[in-house]
Amino acid sequence: MKLISFDVWNTLLSLKAMNEELQRCLVELAKIKVEEASQAIFEVRKEIKKERKEGKSNPDRILELSQELLANRIGKDVEVVKRAVAKATLNVDKEVVIEGARDTLRKVRDLGLISITIGNVMFWPSSYTRLLLEKYQLADYIDRQFYSDELRVYKPMKKMFLEPLRYFSVSPEEALHIGDTRSEDFEGALNAGLYAVWINPKATRIEKIDERGFMVGNVNGLWEVLEILER
Amino acid sequence: MKLISFDVWNTLLSLKAMNEELQRCLVELAKIKVEEASQAIFEVRKEIKKERKEGKSNPDRILELSQELLANRIGKDVEVVKRAVAKATLNVDKEVVIEGARDTLRKVRDLGLISITIGNVMFWPSSYTRLLLEKYQLADYIDRQFYSDELRVYKPMKKMFLEPLRYFSVSPEEALHIGDTRSEDFEGALNAGLYAVWINPKATRIEKIDERGFMVGNVNGLWEVLEILER
Repeated sequence: MKLISFDVWNTLLSLKAMNEELQRCLVELAKIKVEEASQAIFEVRKEIKKERKEGKSNPDRILELSQELLANRIGKDVEVVKRAVAKATLNVDKEVVIEGARDTLRKVRDLGLISITIGNVMFWPSSYTRLLLEKYQLADYIDRQFYSDELRVYKPMKKMFLEPLRYFSVSPEEALHIGDTRSEDFEGALNAGLYAVWINPKATRIEKIDERGFMVGNVNGLWEVLEILER
Repeated sequence: MKLISFDVWNTLLSLKAMNEELQRCLVELAKIKVEEASQAIFEVRKEIKKERKEGKSNPDRILELSQELLANRIGKDVEVVKRAVAKATLNVDKEVVIEGARDTLRKVRDLGLISITIGNVMFWPSSYTRLLLEKYQLADYIDRQFYSDELRVYKPMKKMFLEPLRYFSVSPEEALHIGDTRSEDFEGALNAGLYAVWINPKATRIEKIDERGFMVGNVNGLWEVLEILER
């Protein structure tokens, strides 16, 4: 193994913490009810995940489309969504960092492995994800960050995994991607020829669920997987 | 007058404060000398301003091009520039707000005028500019923000001024744009048919320098201009 690729949201950073903050900011700026905001975020997210799984999203407007969908769902101008994600990024506190994330990145560096992020964007631009990874000292341990709004391609598309690997001249079988969305992260990475680790919060123990695939409960499970692969 | 359009950097927010912070972060992350960082920022900025004046920049990659130019100039990967602008956005303090900017925006709202921003981007994405306008409570007084990396067009191109006006169904002669870059802001706005106010720090008094153009020393000069236009 030469390279570990991390999904960001629900892998290194807590999507729950960020979405709750986004919900608060939407309620404040759009003057809508809490239920309306949370339902809009939930439904639009589901819709977008489905489109991406089917490869139906336009890669050139991946962020814009998600912001417009959310704005339409609450019947407001997209400007409100742009202001809400900015406010949410300012307001979210250190609870946004998933327990063990920084240690995991540090250990990967200590092992002499390259670590990168490969992330899809939704609602807020990758620049805000970069800001949070910087603010909470995770970025120091990441060699390079790759995001769908910058590459104009998204998971589970093969190119989203292969372009970053090409940058480091690493072949798929020398790389492992870990993330929480089964279709985008797990199936996407396997399909591109990488090893893949699926973070399933319901998992009580590490399981080998594919020729090159494992299931773990959270990012800390990466260790046992690497140990198994060393054998 | 129905609408006032504000340039952001050097009009509402201090480019000097942000660039000094960016310089510090480049020195830290790229491990280069202070002189090397400041000269790179200065020279690349000059080069880009020239290209935009001549309409030679690619509107689809306006941010990316500026980040790549800066990275090349210091001989580092663009990732270093992306990290540096994130860190700079986190570190820049309230000194980044230009004196009188918030009051000016508040007065424009009290006059019942629409206020918007029309900004070009360089080095950092408009999402970071939005974050700072949000953090220092300027965004509350801005009806809508328009930026070149979102519209994929830039000042002084006519479209950069006319698209925002069309959004509000306001005609050019009912709008005024204020900014500090003579070619992008002043000449660009006049050329699109708007009234234009050029912020020239060297100006000691307000001067009418064109049929529809004025020169002021800073954003606070907007008042006298509006009074003159009321007569």
